[in-house]
Amino acid sequence: MTERLYIYDTTLRDGQQTQGVQFSAAEKVEIALMLDQLGVDYIEGGWPGANPTDSEFFATAPATRATMTAFGMTKRSGRSAENDEVLAAVMNAGTSSVCLVGKTHPFHVREALGITLDENLENIRASIAHLVASGREALFDAEHFFDGYADDSAYAVACLRAALDAGARWIVLCDTNGGTLPGRVGQVTRAVIAAGIPGDHLGIHCHDDTGNAVACTLAAVDAGARQIQGTLNGLGERCGNASLTTLLPTLVLKKPYASTLEIGLTRDALAGLTRISRRLDEILNRAPSRAAPYAGTSAFAHKAGLHASAILKNPATYEHIDPGVVGNERIIPMSNQAGQSNLRARLAEAGIAVERDDPALSRILDLVKMREEAGYAYDGAQASFELLALTELGRMQHFFDVDRYRVTIERRKNAAGRRISVSEAVVVVQIGGQRMLSVSESIGPDGDDLGPVNALWRALAKDLGPYQTAISDMHLTDFRVRITGAGVEATTRVNIESADHQGHRWSTVGVSPNIVDASFEALVEAIRWKLIRDKVTPA
Amino acid sequence: MTERLYIYDTTLRDGQQTQGVQFSAAEKVEIALMLDQLGVDYIEGGWPGANPTDSEFFATAPATRATMTAFGMTKRSGRSAENDEVLAAVMNAGTSSVCLVGKTHPFHVREALGITLDENLENIRASIAHLVASGREALFDAEHFFDGYADDSAYAVACLRAALDAGARWIVLCDTNGGTLPGRVGQVTRAVIAAGIPGDHLGIHCHDDTGNAVACTLAAVDAGARQIQGTLNGLGERCGNASLTTLLPTLVLKKPYASTLEIGLTRDALAGLTRISRRLDEILNRAPSRAAPYAGTSAFAHKAGLHASAILKNPATYEHIDPGVVGNERIIPMSNQAGQSNLRARLAEAGIAVERDDPALSRILDLVKMREEAGYAYDGAQASFELLALTELGRMQHFFDVDRYRVTIERRKNAAGRRISVSEAVVVVQIGGQRMLSVSESIGPDGDDLGPVNALWRALAKDLGPYQTAISDMHLTDFRVRITGAGVEATTRVNIESADHQGHRWSTVGVSPNIVDASFEALVEAIRWKLIRDKVTPA
Repeated sequence: MTERLYIYDTTLRDGQQTQGVQFSAAEKVEIALMLDQLGVDYIEGGWPGANPTDSEFFATAPATRATMTAFGMTKRSGRSAENDEVLAAVMNAGTSSVCLVGKTHPFHVREALGITLDENLENIRASIAHLVASGREALFDAEHFFDGYADDSAYAVACLRAALDAGARWIVLCDTNGGTLPGRVGQVTRAVIAAGIPGDHLGIHCHDDTGNAVACTLAAVDAGARQIQGTLNGLGERCGNASLTTLLPTLVLKKPYASTLEIGLTRDALAGLTRISRRLDEILNRAPSRAAPYAGTSAFAHKAGLHASAILKNPATYEHIDPGVVGNERIIPMSNQAGQSNLRARLAEAGIAVERDDPALSRILDLVKMREEAGYAYDGAQASFELLALTELGRMQHFFDVDRYRVTIERRKNAAGRRISVSEAVVVVQIGGQRMLSVSESIGPDGDDLGPVNALWRALAKDLGPYQTAISDMHLTDFRVRITGAGVEATTRVNIESADHQGHRWSTVGVSPNIVDASFEALVEAIRWKLIRDKVTPA
Repeated sequence: MTERLYIYDTTLRDGQQTQGVQFSAAEKVEIALMLDQLGVDYIEGGWPGANPTDSEFFATAPATRATMTAFGMTKRSGRSAENDEVLAAVMNAGTSSVCLVGKTHPFHVREALGITLDENLENIRASIAHLVASGREALFDAEHFFDGYADDSAYAVACLRAALDAGARWIVLCDTNGGTLPGRVGQVTRAVIAAGIPGDHLGIHCHDDTGNAVACTLAAVDAGARQIQGTLNGLGERCGNASLTTLLPTLVLKKPYASTLEIGLTRDALAGLTRISRRLDEILNRAPSRAAPYAGTSAFAHKAGLHASAILKNPATYEHIDPGVVGNERIIPMSNQAGQSNLRARLAEAGIAVERDDPALSRILDLVKMREEAGYAYDGAQASFELLALTELGRMQHFFDVDRYRVTIERRKNAAGRRISVSEAVVVVQIGGQRMLSVSESIGPDGDDLGPVNALWRALAKDLGPYQTAISDMHLTDFRVRITGAGVEATTRVNIESADHQGHRWSTVGVSPNIVDASFEALVEAIRWKLIRDKVTPA
């Protein structure tokens, strides 16, 4: 027999406490729809009234299968629940479910609220009773519960009981400061259940301040809690909340959870996990985490030579799950740790067949190593890697030469006295003995300067003579800059991702102390790869 | 009574399996010295013979208090331990301690090695006996142990016993594929001890593929294992190894470990933890992890308004430890989640006193919010934040205006037919009614072009008339670029960190679709902040 475990997502509320993260209301809508698609049971949308974006989100919240929940705090002393305007703002969001945070730790009752322990109990009771009387599903978020329990277990449990007796559907044990270890979380959760708070009314909310948020959550589930709270990609205050991106596959795929608990996540939804995780990073404009379990870009990267060669025989040798199950993929990166057999396998994947004993293999490995020492990185620039290999194999075609380019960036006042900047690029290309000169400036739709790299790309793509048709459906989809070394003398690595209308995406890399020159190298490689991909005949 | 727990670091070996990480021998030496300073017991330096850098490192390894250990694998079948050249290369590194990985999982014995189970047992026995006969401390790294135990517990334990009986000081239980959960790690470790492998001979080596590497390590310690293996910052293959940066403070500071286990780490050494963690990131040229427990840049950042205001009263309200204990610091970032009281506190820290009811406070908050929506980020640009606040408070002094600038980047062939690039910048500044025109090109010590931002900085700093003395001891120490949005139409955020000979460091930010213009904004702000800091009188 399986028991139901409920998933409560707080990406839009606690996740928004991440340093540097600020969602717009539209972004919140998009994230809520992703969460719903994934199959969580509750979506905590924010704190209505505390924050203009949160109020706006609830006003326009999408219809979801998951229960949309508003977050707030228990009423303050000296007024009734009905007359507390902070609580009223939360209720006014009109969600069917409401979660209220309240104190359970005597230190905080005295220090932060300055009221008596009994007043705090009454605030909890009256607030939850008010939610229930208004027909809402009530959740009590027991702030600092584990610290409170250590300090005064009887009072901490009395707070939980006050909420339960007032009709709370869920009592959520919060390790607010994140300092409690998994063994202790399991022990206290068991004690709470033994004290009469049923496990199927208990939730767990952990933070990662000791690197144990996931393990603490599992420990509470092992002890009998039946709701887990967390965020996508482990966003959250300080070190973050328990990551649902990590917990969900473990609960679906691993013993004992897979066979004893039922959660609202299908195998199909799980296959969308990596995509959702990466999309959230895009919204946040963060590089995806390399090392994140399941969804990280390196989560199934096998760099050690021994591992990589065993993986080629049988992936189960060094993988705990099939990466496809969570929508991720296996990576065998190039590096001097990898041997020639990995190189051949990677080239074969790109459609480049090489004999086992071809001496070019060791030259390619040496060249990759030498260039990586100079700042290149081919792990994330497959197209540049293929061009390098084709050149070394003597199979690279010659399409065009760039004789010279010049880019000018100027900032000055215009006739109206307003400061403007202008970028202009001139590129001179040789194609089959013919010289072609192109010039472009870089002005965006609103008349603003879009900068030197944009100007350079426009000039380069403006007239490539016989190749113009081939590159006309090509556009740049991502542009990343990494500075290696320090100060303005640093070396710059530019990664460019390109796409075309046939649905291909490819990435190239350029390195130079001069950022414009590094960009130029990556742009030229992107064009060369496209010409090869489309089997264009050199002029 | 306390028991000794041994710390075994594998940053230089397993940490080097991280995708994108490749240490030089000199970097390995620096990291080894940091580890020794921290107080680990063993430093695994690499696999001599497998990799030229590792061989070079052992040839030049520094003297450390920690036991330097070479890594390798058990001898192969069909030859004696004495005649296995892979093992010989490991022995030749001359370390007093050697760790050999071997199989314990029948599937791998058959699939990867293609030998019988008995041959594998004999390879383990003979290899360890050979180490012991050569006077080395021997460690047996039981690869895939937890998977092997699930498959055939008797055989897996027989492998451990073969190593122990042959004289291994340590038997290390490895969860190589990282799929085992903490409850299971604890249970199996207890079973292994019950089967006769003493806990004070048992080590644990976990990976983070389910986000539980730290918790699994603690579970094994709870069960009785007395050596833990991990890496600085959790580097390692795929999702990484158990992070010692996370585990060490927990073991020193938290119950029950603090009072029951003794480790070779002093409180003083612990206070160097954040510095060591950040230095490793510098060596790797990575941004420090924000969310990393203890050492992360956000680990003690209090963004939620309620948290931030309670922290101002008493830090213990929302901190599980004092950040200073691990050498980290508290951060109250600016954002629209923070209220006016946080703003006043942050300004006060910068020496800018503002009355509680000054209407400029809400204007500053609005401006910060508006500019953050446009791509600015003040969390990491304290100097720009102060300039913004001073301006809004009407306390900003006027030093100079930049009338215009022009930057030219040119790439062409020189007289010798070699491709070269040249950057040149012209800056026109107005100081107290006087116009000054400066020009610089950007050529590095080896005659190479250092790019447009360098040229611009040189031209700007070349002649600032009456301010020249004040800025002469100023230099740029870091330059970071972040692209927001996608494609070449993206907006660019540039962060610049500056320093002077008085030991000040300050950071500024600039935003523009034009990367040169964004850099220029940050450069100008860096100079303005320096002039204010040095109380220079405007001309």
